[in-house]
Amino acid sequence: MAPAGGPRADRGILERLEGGEVVIGDGSFLITLEKRGYVKAGLWTPEAVVEHPDAVRQLHMEFLRAGSNVMQTFTFSASEDNMEGKWEDVNAAACDLAREVAGKGNALVAGSLCQTSVYRHHGDEARVKKLFRLQLEVFVRKNVDFLIAEYFEHIEEAVWAVEVLKETGKPVAATMCIGPEGDVRGVTPGACAVKLVEAGASIVGVNCRFGPRVSLKTVRLMKEGLGAAGLKAHFMVQSLGFHTPDCGKGGFVDLPEYPFGLEPRVATRWDIQKYAREAYNLGVRYIGGCCGFEPYHIRAIAEELAPERGFLPPASEKHGSWGSGLDMHTKPWIRARTQREYWESLLPASGRPFCPSLSKPDA
Amino acid sequence: MAPAGGPRADRGILERLEGGEVVIGDGSFLITLEKRGYVKAGLWTPEAVVEHPDAVRQLHMEFLRAGSNVMQTFTFSASEDNMEGKWEDVNAAACDLAREVAGKGNALVAGSLCQTSVYRHHGDEARVKKLFRLQLEVFVRKNVDFLIAEYFEHIEEAVWAVEVLKETGKPVAATMCIGPEGDVRGVTPGACAVKLVEAGASIVGVNCRFGPRVSLKTVRLMKEGLGAAGLKAHFMVQSLGFHTPDCGKGGFVDLPEYPFGLEPRVATRWDIQKYAREAYNLGVRYIGGCCGFEPYHIRAIAEELAPERGFLPPASEKHGSWGSGLDMHTKPWIRARTQREYWESLLPASGRPFCPSLSKPDA
Amino acid sequence: MAPAGGPRADRGILERLEGGEVVIGDGSFLITLEKRGYVKAGLWTPEAVVEHPDAVRQLHMEFLRAGSNVMQTFTFSASEDNMEGKWEDVNAAACDLAREVAGKGNALVAGSLCQTSVYRHHGDEARVKKLFRLQLEVFVRKNVDFLIAEYFEHIEEAVWAVEVLKETGKPVAATMCIGPEGDVRGVTPGACAVKLVEAGASIVGVNCRFGPRVSLKTVRLMKEGLGAAGLKAHFMVQSLGFHTPDCGKGGFVDLPEYPFGLEPRVATRWDIQKYAREAYNLGVRYIGGCCGFEPYHIRAIAEELAPERGFLPPASEKHGSWGSGLDMHTKPWIRARTQREYWESLLPASGRPFCPSLSKPDA
Amino acid sequence: MAPAGGPRADRGILERLEGGEVVIGDGSFLITLEKRGYVKAGLWTPEAVVEHPDAVRQLHMEFLRAGSNVMQTFTFSASEDNMEGKWEDVNAAACDLAREVAGKGNALVAGSLCQTSVYRHHGDEARVKKLFRLQLEVFVRKNVDFLIAEYFEHIEEAVWAVEVLKETGKPVAATMCIGPEGDVRGVTPGACAVKLVEAGASIVGVNCRFGPRVSLKTVRLMKEGLGAAGLKAHFMVQSLGFHTPDCGKGGFVDLPEYPFGLEPRVATRWDIQKYAREAYNLGVRYIGGCCGFEPYHIRAIAEELAPERGFLPPASEKHGSWGSGLDMHTKPWIRARTQREYWESLLPASGRPFCPSLSKPDA
Repeated sequence: MAPAGGPRADRGILERLEGGEVVIGDGSFLITLEKRGYVKAGLWTPEAVVEHPDAVRQLHMEFLRAGSNVMQTFTFSASEDNMEGKWEDVNAAACDLAREVAGKGNALVAGSLCQTSVYRHHGDEARVKKLFRLQLEVFVRKNVDFLIAEYFEHIEEAVWAVEVLKETGKPVAATMCIGPEGDVRGVTPGACAVKLVEAGASIVGVNCRFGPRVSLKTVRLMKEGLGAAGLKAHFMVQSLGFHTPDCGKGGFVDLPEYPFGLEPRVATRWDIQKYAREAYNLGVRYIGGCCGFEPYHIRAIAEELAPERGFLPPASEKHGSWGSGLDMHTKPWIRARTQREYWESLLPASGRPFCPSLSKPDA
Repeated sequence: MAPAGGPRADRGILERLEGGEVVIGDGSFLITLEKRGYVKAGLWTPEAVVEHPDAVRQLHMEFLRAGSNVMQTFTFSASEDNMEGKWEDVNAAACDLAREVAGKGNALVAGSLCQTSVYRHHGDEARVKKLFRLQLEVFVRKNVDFLIAEYFEHIEEAVWAVEVLKETGKPVAATMCIGPEGDVRGVTPGACAVKLVEAGASIVGVNCRFGPRVSLKTVRLMKEGLGAAGLKAHFMVQSLGFHTPDCGKGGFVDLPEYPFGLEPRVATRWDIQKYAREAYNLGVRYIGGCCGFEPYHIRAIAEELAPERGFLPPASEKHGSWGSGLDMHTKPWIRARTQREYWESLLPASGRPFCPSLSKPDA
Repeated sequence: MAPAGGPRADRGILERLEGGEVVIGDGSFLITLEKRGYVKAGLWTPEAVVEHPDAVRQLHMEFLRAGSNVMQTFTFSASEDNMEGKWEDVNAAACDLAREVAGKGNALVAGSLCQTSVYRHHGDEARVKKLFRLQLEVFVRKNVDFLIAEYFEHIEEAVWAVEVLKETGKPVAATMCIGPEGDVRGVTPGACAVKLVEAGASIVGVNCRFGPRVSLKTVRLMKEGLGAAGLKAHFMVQSLGFHTPDCGKGGFVDLPEYPFGLEPRVATRWDIQKYAREAYNLGVRYIGGCCGFEPYHIRAIAEELAPERGFLPPASEKHGSWGSGLDMHTKPWIRARTQREYWESLLPASGRPFCPSLSKPDA
Repeated sequence: MAPAGGPRADRGILERLEGGEVVIGDGSFLITLEKRGYVKAGLWTPEAVVEHPDAVRQLHMEFLRAGSNVMQTFTFSASEDNMEGKWEDVNAAACDLAREVAGKGNALVAGSLCQTSVYRHHGDEARVKKLFRLQLEVFVRKNVDFLIAEYFEHIEEAVWAVEVLKETGKPVAATMCIGPEGDVRGVTPGACAVKLVEAGASIVGVNCRFGPRVSLKTVRLMKEGLGAAGLKAHFMVQSLGFHTPDCGKGGFVDLPEYPFGLEPRVATRWDIQKYAREAYNLGVRYIGGCCGFEPYHIRAIAEELAPERGFLPPASEKHGSWGSGLDMHTKPWIRARTQREYWESLLPASGRPFCPSLSKPDA
């Protein structure tokens, strides 16, 4: 891969949020690149950044075009314990790719790290923090704009991550992969939010494991928890692109359809417009997605909030809002679909009459 | 765009089919690139080949990695009547992109054209054939390996297309976008197949508009029709990646979910393995997909038929067959999903209890 | 049981039908009395007429109040081969009960017999006809008003039944328990209707095994068959009270839910109003029900066709048409349900999100 | 109606419960008799006891045969404010009918009263209690065995009812029509149970408005509330025969299907066996049903708990447990259904692919 780079964004994440802007995150890398042929389910490691940089760059580009203001480094699970030997190159290449694409659209680069397997097996603070610092050194060397600690099931480990990330002096966002029932040990969303803010996170929220509605419910509980504690923070939500009304505490990984039968649960663009609106109304200003969130879902956020933000994303040149691009169709009943009410009230059928609507989570 | 190119494939389409090989087609361009931000729904024209060649090249690459043996030029609706001014550059660029990627994997390039709006409005044979010849000149100049006339609702226009394509001396495949009820004027699938073969098509079948099961039913009727007429041909199927048990004669465009609410209908990889097996058992040897068919669906065809073909596609390095890549997951109930029986018997839930299973087609 | 009786009806079945009247049949005995505790599933014999006459009389009364103009003797499977020793008493008691209740409302009594197990095992015309004649002697002695041969899977046996019943000189109706695919041996509905009329049936149609929509489709085919043969008859439909879009040729007995899990398929009164209207529009003038058809379903037929008939049934004193009885409810949103449009457009939920919409028939 | 009567039961309700017996309640009168043609929806008053005593007697008989140990007087809403002029005759006739049938099977007669419209409009304790006393005088005169205050939305009015009923010296059961969210004003199930027991109820629980699963959840909360308060009582559950996972606080009356489109929600006998088992395991010993609970549902309770009770109800002569009555069916795949596992694992289809699984409650 050629050395990458591009101009730095003009304003930082906190300047944007404090200025009242809506910041749009990016979407799904692991699940999306699995479907495109570059990530292996089960491992879920991002070696594609060195093996197939074109594929990763292209996905970054799609999110940028769709309206993302943040390019997260594709470094999920790229800690030394998961990718020994390769981890350093992977983290470096991921930073370069993110910066290269971010530079094409005044986007920010966020260095991203997640929970470790060391924590689960040993719970040893020193070892876990050492792993975080290894990745962090690359992020600092590559001069990412801010840091995200994401996909933490345990508030204790998330706090450790925030503590380490804070050492850099860069803004820190922290999101947990929990639902309304709280973390693995039952710490409530509100209590989690308090601990994250106390540890130094400027932005808190949730990512992954639960669908749009459930994720917003969890953020609401976080907000209430912070409010009750007299604390303040910016809020962030990056939900699944899948509907999960039937999830248990463990989220979508416990659904019998995970990970190879989730198709019928994929959100429509209209579902995501609703999610964006509800997130906005809840006071969340950093809105993106996680597994299952495709570029057009990100575009849906940007289109829903275009009135507030004052502009549409580049990819909207290829999308008439609320289906208006259909107005030239030859069939009149398809032209009749070019209205907000049509799509808002649509109850999309599964085409699967032998399948149920909900599943019982395993375990 | 730089002039593209790559080595030509070693054997032609007819040599492969006559030698008993299974040829794997490619998948969805319009719908997939719409979701990635490069195609406008309603127009459905492929200007992306000149505007965003990297995005189109990447999608070709994904299908190649997934196992496609044919790169169809992304020239759907790129006739002079739909894209005046731009059509010639678009057709040329599409041929170059297809050849460039095909050359990386011994794949064939198929020049592809589809039904015209002129036919619908005027039904004038001379004008329609002239449009076909314009596109065809580019295909010939770019030396595509064979030709596909696809997405025809009227057998009459499809026959005209085959007649024109035959003039080149290259092999011709012809697929109609019809279901078991036949073409717009009620010509049965069997009668359509007879006319196409009599006009000179070596390969016949269906593409688009109907899901896997319905498409195979239509091909079966075509096969029976040819058999009854004492004719022979190779068979081809490129179905939707959506389940459409509730379609009427017009196919998925008449479903109320078209085109922005089809998500719950997307086939799983296991649905497509079943489709590949049934197609194979029916004697179909050119098996691919159309709208909604993502790279992992193509990979599913290649994996299902790997025993017959003797090899796996490149992208299977990132996929353990029947979920075996999950065998290292930390949760035992997820590891338990690494078996064929689990995924074959899964009835995936929609996660949408307020939605129906089937819709009533409009019109 | 005391000898029963009551005044005879003023006009016969053919006078009524030829006069242009709509004749409303009765509904479910076996399935309904199974749920009430008086019939054993699997056996499906009507010993309740002697064991628990009050229960049977009450059900006759409910159908009479609901608008039935015909009381069928509850003599299903009461042939000598199924109920040896008891059959004669059962047939006699059933006639008395039917006459007693019919006399309270100017209804007709129809002696009813159905297919035999002897036919299936031996196919011996003489033995089968002898069985029919045994039951028929009781019907004649009890002076029923007309005769119904119902629930025949084989047209051959149905024809034998009609031939025997014709010997009495009474009007004969004949209904088969078939769907659009025809009888067990593939004789089409149209051909079945022709044979029944040629054998002497004045009224032909279908009963049981298929739901309202499928049953009407079958009657339509019968009508077309008679028309093509230049024959005439009155038409009759007595469908299931269950929805069966997923039935195969064998009808509802092959559904995995038969007979103890059919609840989610029970038709609403509004479904039955639609059925009555469609039957009427098709030219059917004898409209009733079979298994699963409860008294309120019969009332729904009578209410739907009240404009044509000019009167409501007695039980409508306890039912405001299209929900108007709710107009005094204390909750305004329940009062808002008192309109035709509300109930006609209602899509009733199953309350079972873990269950599918359709089943695959066994066998 | 002739004065009715029959032998008194040998032991009272408290003797039975304290002796560890399972007492089986009865089921649906209003909804069931609406379908049979004797009750008007919206009014929901029991004038049928004088207008059509045979129909009411028959339903009592069916419940008795199915295993009910209690005949509740059919006096729902039969208070002076709802049925002026008629109320006294109705209450008297209802007592006579209940006693007549109870005497045929050693069942108890329970005088039943429910919430008043006066409470909702005026909230005047004296007026409400006066209404209760009017009904109660008839119950005492007719010497019912015990009293049930049922279908109360407000704990305050329920307590008033218990206070009045206690004046008779007869045992008092009290059930509220609430779900886990508690009464109209938000009093929790646990707190409701405490107030009812403190007011003098010996048996507490829930009836109506919610399906089997939700009702048991509510009773569990009641039990926990009593336990926390150091109080004791017998527990009782009489749930709907409809599945209502989608109900809000107001229960099934707020579902859009109420009351004329609830068919797809009707529980199967197997659902009720599960309900009976779970109720038993929870320590509930008075188990019956309310709206939608048909005689065969009551039989299902009796059959499920036959091992504990040592006997089957009379109606089981017409029912082979777990489908065993099918063992003589001619089709082998129907004979194969005669096993517990088959019916326990059955996921019954709705036959309605155009309908959703759940509804959104109105209001």
